[in-house]
Parts: sequence; C-alpha cells; structure tokens
Amino acid sequence: MPLTSPTPARLRLHGYWRSGTTYRVRIALGLKGLGWETVPVNLLEGAQKGEAYRRLQPQGLVPALEADGLVIAQSPAILEWIEETYPDPPLLPSTPADRAAVRAMAAAIACDIHPLHNPRVFARLKQDHAAAPADTEAWAAHWIAEGLAALEQLVARHGGGLAFGDRPTLADCYLVPQIYTANRFHVDLSPYPRLVAAAAAAGALPAVAAAHPAAQPDAPPAA
Amino acid sequence: MPLTSPTPARLRLHGYWRSGTTYRVRIALGLKGLGWETVPVNLLEGAQKGEAYRRLQPQGLVPALEADGLVIAQSPAILEWIEETYPDPPLLPSTPADRAAVRAMAAAIACDIHPLHNPRVFARLKQDHAAAPADTEAWAAHWIAEGLAALEQLVARHGGGLAFGDRPTLADCYLVPQIYTANRFHVDLSPYPRLVAAAAAAGALPAVAAAHPAAQPDAPPAA
Repeated sequence: MPLTSPTPARLRLHGYWRSGTTYRVRIALGLKGLGWETVPVNLLEGAQKGEAYRRLQPQGLVPALEADGLVIAQSPAILEWIEETYPDPPLLPSTPADRAAVRAMAAAIACDIHPLHNPRVFARLKQDHAAAPADTEAWAAHWIAEGLAALEQLVARHGGGLAFGDRPTLADCYLVPQIYTANRFHVDLSPYPRLVAAAAAAGALPAVAAAHPAAQPDAPPAA
Repeated sequence: MPLTSPTPARLRLHGYWRSGTTYRVRIALGLKGLGWETVPVNLLEGAQKGEAYRRLQPQGLVPALEADGLVIAQSPAILEWIEETYPDPPLLPSTPADRAAVRAMAAAIACDIHPLHNPRVFARLKQDHAAAPADTEAWAAHWIAEGLAALEQLVARHGGGLAFGDRPTLADCYLVPQIYTANRFHVDLSPYPRLVAAAAAAGALPAVAAAHPAAQPDAPPAA
C-alpha cells in the first residue's frame, strides 16, 4: 500500500442522491479532498437493474465507484479502498484496537441497521406479508432504534465530538447517512443525544455538508 | 501495523456454535494458525442479552473476541483486526484492487444476505406479521438465493478453486458459513456451482473443517 497518496484517479461515483450507501462514499471522498463525477442511477425508475448498469455492476446495486476503469462495488469495500489508496487524511485511527472500534461502529450500521430498511425489503414485506406503508415505516423505525441504541453506547465510550474521537473517521461516513435516514422514517432521536451531536458536528464539516443528498445534482428541486 | 506476526495474545472467542458470524471468526483464527478458547454464549437461552455478557459486549450480540483484555465486537471488525494483527498468512490479497474485490464479496454476504435471516428478524416477522415457520424459512431462502446469485458472478470473475483465486481469503471466511446456513434453510444450491465448489474446497482445509459448527464444544451431540 502506498505511504503517500498518489495522483487521484478519475473517479466516477454511480449512485443515487438519497441512497445511504452512496452518501457514505461521497462523505469519504469529500473528507479525502478528492474530486469525482456523479453518475446518477435512478433507483425509482429501476435503473440499477437495467442492462447498462449491470454491465458495470452485475449485482445491480448502488453505489459503484469507477477509478480509471477499475469498478468497485459494495460501500464497505469502496470505503476501505479509498482509505488504502488515498491514506491522507486517514479515516481510520493508527492502532489496530482503535481501528477495530471504528470498524465495529461501521458494521453496527452496515450489517445491523441499514440492510433491514432497504427498499427491496419493504417490497418483500408488501408482497409476502401485505405490509402497508405504515407497517414498513414501523419496521424500519424498529431496527433503526434498536441499532442506534447500541451505537449510542459505542459513541459514549469512544466519541469525542465526532463518533470516534475528534477527527473524522469511517464511523462518521456511516453515521451521518444513518441519522439522515432515521429522520426520513420519523424516528425519535431524543434517546441518542451523543449520536445526534456527533452527526451534527460531522455534518457541519464542509466536505460532509457537500455530500448531503439535497445537494446532489440528481436530487429533485424540493429535496 | 506490524510486518510480522507478534506472539499471539490470549484469545477468547465468545459465540455460539451455529452462529454464522461466530463461524466466520473461527475460520479466520484457524487459517492464521492461532489457538483460542471457546466461550459458549447460548443464544437459544438468550445468554447474549444477559447481564454478564452485556458487561463484555453492551450490544448483546455475538461474536466478541477478547484479546488480552481488549474486547472486539462485530465480525467484520474482528476479521480485519485479526488480519492486521496477525498478517501471516494473509487473508487479503496484496493490491488495493484485489483487496476491494475480496471485501466486496464479504460485504455481499455480511450486508446483503446474513442480516435478513438473523433470528431477531424472524422473531419480528412472527410478532408483527404473524409469520409461520414456513414463512420465515421462505423469507430466508429468498434473500439467500438472491444474494448467492450475485455472489456466483463475483466468484466466476475472481475465483480459482477458492472464492478469490486459489488461496484462502476473507471471502472464504464469509462464504463457508453462508453455504452452511443456506443448507439449513433448504436452499437449492444447484444454480451456484462455483460457490458450492469453492465452499467445498475451503471446507476441506483442516483449519476450516475444525471450525465447522458440529465440531464445536457447545454443539449438541446430534448436530
């Protein structure tokens, strides 16, 4: 792995303005000071399942990061690739123990919360269990609340202004979009004051603010 | 990060014989040639939610790896910690692009499949949507089949006897338990011949065979 950041590749981020996983990647690219081209994939129109996108990413999932021809899928893999390829400024702490703490926060969101409020899960709940919109929102809110309660304890232990200490890490790349999504699903965030504060502090950083869904070129004017 | 493996810490793995996430960690520890003490946490009795375990791991989730007092949660974080702390033999390839391919396979399981067939999800389906056992098995089988179809394409591109190339990687640590779970849920694996072959090849390695759920001290005699 390089010890200093190389000249940035031409980066093209295929994703959707409101996708939480695309949002994670935008935050990381921004915190690294990298420029990128946004390639919108309209999930509402099913563009991720279309032939053109599947040629790029056979799974038909966003985001995908193109870097000089290399195509990387899955936001956790993309984030680690960004960290390894552009190590400065670091988004992981220096010791393995601290890195494990940051990655545990990331996984608490990536594995325990986000997969359960994915649109494809809602579609399945509607199809197989006749779930109404209020049911799927309650389903999402349940998993978000349970997951955030666990995360609040991790930030209580490790946080210091941001999710881990006082410098941005991968934990913030996951936390900020998750809080955004929690608000979309009208989750009461008052039991998680540390998370709200950490997400607000991260969200105030210019690179993170610029990654906000409403600031993306494919966001509708009212977003 | 150390360039050579240090003297192994005293490792204690808190988990459950049949837990797919615990199984991942056992495989990685075994492939690294590390010894560890198994500390059973009986999920059927709810031990993971008990006070004793929550003092160790406040989220009440397995697995947790204790290493000389350090407690690491979340299997993706544990696996990366193992790789960083005991780099030999490597479970990630050497280039960032190849590492991203392995981590994308890992995330395809850790984020897109496994979270949806977790017992707590079944409990919620029963409680909120009156799901019968046949319904939760169909739910699990749906997500496993969809995820394995995507993974089959990744292994077609990158595999070579094992999931990525012909040496064990983190992808095998995720794949072997996922195939085990797919069999538990009676998923037809015939559409995924590459996955079945890769998992069988990995499972035949002595370190991986020793990590099998049925070989664990807390497995019931009939397992």
